[in-house]
Amino acid sequence: MKIDILTLFPKMFAPLDESLLGKAQAKQLLKINLCDFRQYSDDKHHHVDDTPYGGGAGMLLQPQPIYRALDAINAQDGEPKRVILLDPAGRKFDQEVAQELAQEEHLVFICGHYEGFDHRIEALATDKLSIGDFVLTGGEMAAMMMIDATARFIPGILGNGTSAYTDSFAQGLLEYPQYTRPVEYRGQTVPEILRSGNHPKIAQWRHEQALRKTYFARPDLLEQVDLTSADQEFLERLAKEKEAETEL
Amino acid sequence: MKIDILTLFPKMFAPLDESLLGKAQAKQLLKINLCDFRQYSDDKHHHVDDTPYGGGAGMLLQPQPIYRALDAINAQDGEPKRVILLDPAGRKFDQEVAQELAQEEHLVFICGHYEGFDHRIEALATDKLSIGDFVLTGGEMAAMMMIDATARFIPGILGNGTSAYTDSFAQGLLEYPQYTRPVEYRGQTVPEILRSGNHPKIAQWRHEQALRKTYFARPDLLEQVDLTSADQEFLERLAKEKEAETEL
Repeated sequence: MKIDILTLFPKMFAPLDESLLGKAQAKQLLKINLCDFRQYSDDKHHHVDDTPYGGGAGMLLQPQPIYRALDAINAQDGEPKRVILLDPAGRKFDQEVAQELAQEEHLVFICGHYEGFDHRIEALATDKLSIGDFVLTGGEMAAMMMIDATARFIPGILGNGTSAYTDSFAQGLLEYPQYTRPVEYRGQTVPEILRSGNHPKIAQWRHEQALRKTYFARPDLLEQVDLTSADQEFLERLAKEKEAETEL
Repeated sequence: MKIDILTLFPKMFAPLDESLLGKAQAKQLLKINLCDFRQYSDDKHHHVDDTPYGGGAGMLLQPQPIYRALDAINAQDGEPKRVILLDPAGRKFDQEVAQELAQEEHLVFICGHYEGFDHRIEALATDKLSIGDFVLTGGEMAAMMMIDATARFIPGILGNGTSAYTDSFAQGLLEYPQYTRPVEYRGQTVPEILRSGNHPKIAQWRHEQALRKTYFARPDLLEQVDLTSADQEFLERLAKEKEAETEL
């Protein structure tokens, strides 16, 4: 997959060279190109922002440098591209969007910065995506997170036989509690069942713990899950447990 | 504000030295300490992870190095700290959480990495926060985003008389479209009203555009907003507009 990132702060993307994404680039599974769109400014001082029409505080990114930067990317090849703009009014980014973007050959991220951008820049986007209901100084960190979540679905990026398709949200449930060494740490012990060697029982315990965690923390997720009749019975027991607790 | 970050990848935090957060650190409004918790491992090879009890793919972070790292931070001062763990089962991070965290003197972020962490690490957290319904390779990028959104509420960090309290979500509405130079770009023109100099009319237009955008893209946000009777009337007009469109 090829990813172009339009940004005024290319140095902010250092995390993409670390860990999983660094390895993916070394293996050429991912080709990331950072484009500082300031170089495309027609302004003699290479300004990229100006004050808003109609007044108000702050500076807005002008359309010209970003349009020209995208022209330059499109001039390199005729490939269709998904052009992503971060926008709180956009579609909420989640595991399903990550999986969808992972099918593409070529993504472009436009990262705003400062107070905002000229409305005409929106016309360039094929996708407006929201990372959540909060305000960031720029789109850089959000873009990196989307790239990380997306890259996990590209075949060959996750090693050791693990797969993004078995991660928690992929099955629609939150993850069951996991434990590693030591057996006892500061008075907290690994549940016996996990040390029993009884693998069918362990699988059942883990599945029930995942159902339990999801039921109490994120019941909305259960609406999307294919539940077996055993799952349904287990959830009814949890509902009674919750009711009994409320009555106390 | 003081922020300690427990991570195996301190180099991933380079973006914190750029832009707004870099300036905030230079002005000593923010003091960020990166703690590579591998140095607290009791293991002779400084391992920090091990295989899961009960079997399964991947490696889990062990409790010992992270507990010891937090001990070291607590030994420096007796200050109360908010200890934040990223957890998809946690409270959803949003502008309200950012504002709440900005009131604190001292935050600690625990960043997991790889396949997950030993369940006993959760006992260290005062806050479990979720950044969204997707899976990341590590908590580093999400922690940076939370720090950015939070820092915007610390007095003195945003310059030029701008304030995080006037950002879009602060008023409960999405932001109206903004425009800057040039007046015309590739056939798209800045709306005349914004060039009229009639400031009461401009303010009304912007408010109505914000209501319109929120009504069509994120109607759920309107439930939290104090609407005037004029707002209510405007929304009724939008509802009729929507109805007429559906009938066509």
